[in-house]
Amino acid sequence: MPDSARAKGFDRFADVSGAAGFRIVAVEPGRAEVALARRDDLVQFFGHFHGGVITALADQAAGIAVTSGLPKGRIGVTVEIKVNFLSPADGSELVARAKTLKMSGSIGVATVEVFSKNGATETLCAFCTATMRALDLPAESR
Amino acid sequence: MPDSARAKGFDRFADVSGAAGFRIVAVEPGRAEVALARRDDLVQFFGHFHGGVITALADQAAGIAVTSGLPKGRIGVTVEIKVNFLSPADGSELVARAKTLKMSGSIGVATVEVFSKNGATETLCAFCTATMRALDLPAESR
Amino acid sequence: MPDSARAKGFDRFADVSGAAGFRIVAVEPGRAEVALARRDDLVQFFGHFHGGVITALADQAAGIAVTSGLPKGRIGVTVEIKVNFLSPADGSELVARAKTLKMSGSIGVATVEVFSKNGATETLCAFCTATMRALDLPAESR
Amino acid sequence: MPDSARAKGFDRFADVSGAAGFRIVAVEPGRAEVALARRDDLVQFFGHFHGGVITALADQAAGIAVTSGLPKGRIGVTVEIKVNFLSPADGSELVARAKTLKMSGSIGVATVEVFSKNGATETLCAFCTATMRALDLPAESR
Repeated sequence: MPDSARAKGFDRFADVSGAAGFRIVAVEPGRAEVALARRDDLVQFFGHFHGGVITALADQAAGIAVTSGLPKGRIGVTVEIKVNFLSPADGSELVARAKTLKMSGSIGVATVEVFSKNGATETLCAFCTATMRALDLPAESR
Repeated sequence: MPDSARAKGFDRFADVSGAAGFRIVAVEPGRAEVALARRDDLVQFFGHFHGGVITALADQAAGIAVTSGLPKGRIGVTVEIKVNFLSPADGSELVARAKTLKMSGSIGVATVEVFSKNGATETLCAFCTATMRALDLPAESR
Repeated sequence: MPDSARAKGFDRFADVSGAAGFRIVAVEPGRAEVALARRDDLVQFFGHFHGGVITALADQAAGIAVTSGLPKGRIGVTVEIKVNFLSPADGSELVARAKTLKMSGSIGVATVEVFSKNGATETLCAFCTATMRALDLPAESR
Repeated sequence: MPDSARAKGFDRFADVSGAAGFRIVAVEPGRAEVALARRDDLVQFFGHFHGGVITALADQAAGIAVTSGLPKGRIGVTVEIKVNFLSPADGSELVARAKTLKMSGSIGVATVEVFSKNGATETLCAFCTATMRALDLPAESR
């Protein structure tokens, strides 16, 4: 995890993301990249990454992109998320790249492109939009 | 798992769902109910069920609802899924109830209500729509 | 327009809705029904109601359902809307029935079923979810 | 309308689009730009372009982007559409720019950026994703 991510406290996302093995690759205000290596408990019937896993990864990337643009002590939580599955996620790794389209009042909207990686080849396998709401973190978590 | 579910082959969904502990509670053509008990690796930052887990559960329920209405040897795969998170999923169990709204040609649309359960109390915590495409299963899987 | 709708000020929605001929059939807190008769400038290529018209009608119904549950002087505006088109809207009239699923802080979520009507027969032709944000109306509009 | 658009038959979209005044600005395989000038019957309560009008414009642009990549005699019809409204559409003109993300079998997915234009200034006011299904046009329409 880059120091910039740790400084924002993203190492506290240590639950589903930790269990699944999400890796924060890059964070800057309004942008985030999160990766995930293939594992047998992350796939579906056909042996490709499961749609729920893809969605969780996209959600994490969107949340970090939006949160990284908020003042310290505020966090973006998901109001709604929508994912189109475009091609089989049959690579050895997933990479989700999120960017904030707009922050307006406490509402932010992000898009996420999710790529399936095989060696040096990346294929767009899912496209996601997410609406986030900015909340104050509980005092003890800041 | 009910025998009707096993007869349709839904015990083959044994990957993410199996790893996470999804339980198929009921299946009939066009309807499915799937449940999931709370576990520490299924929650997010605030200790509630993670949005990606909720989405995976809803996706599974929608897929089973649509698939259960298809002829043997056909399966519904997700084209797109959309989830609105309505209240904190802070119960000890999730229950997703899916129904097929419409099957038209090879395209099906399902809605899913996801409830957070605490004892006998159920609270609607997420609402999902999913668009599915019917595919032929590979011969060896039928 | 029912008096209850006029009392809430819904007769002020007199623009696209007025031009297209939207009719508010029923309003109660958290629910609304809005209808629209077929007209040659409201159809698409195949002579069915246009998807944009269906969406506008669903949006109006969702907005009224959410707004009708808000205190006087507050109005629901659309954050995002999603519509699945389920069958051809080839009737002589559309009827959109909206209900608020959840109001949480200033965010509300509604679902809308849109029916295509031919005589006494109603066919579900579209299903919509909408996320709304509650805003204060400008003082002069209250 | 550019000749390339007329050659593909897009001048036949002459109904809601014609009534509202949609103008096809540019078409190439997988891409389309459609514009719309402000008119009093296209606005909502606050005097901005109505969400239904924005959606109809985005839908048209998405449909043309997808259809322009299909063989002659095939047309893309909308399975589902989702629009996030990002800022007030208070310009004198709307411009929708659509591109096809993926065509897979008979299913295509497009994204659309909608800009509100005031003189030379463009502001992103809405972001849309649409799922389309490719159909054969009736013989007499080809």
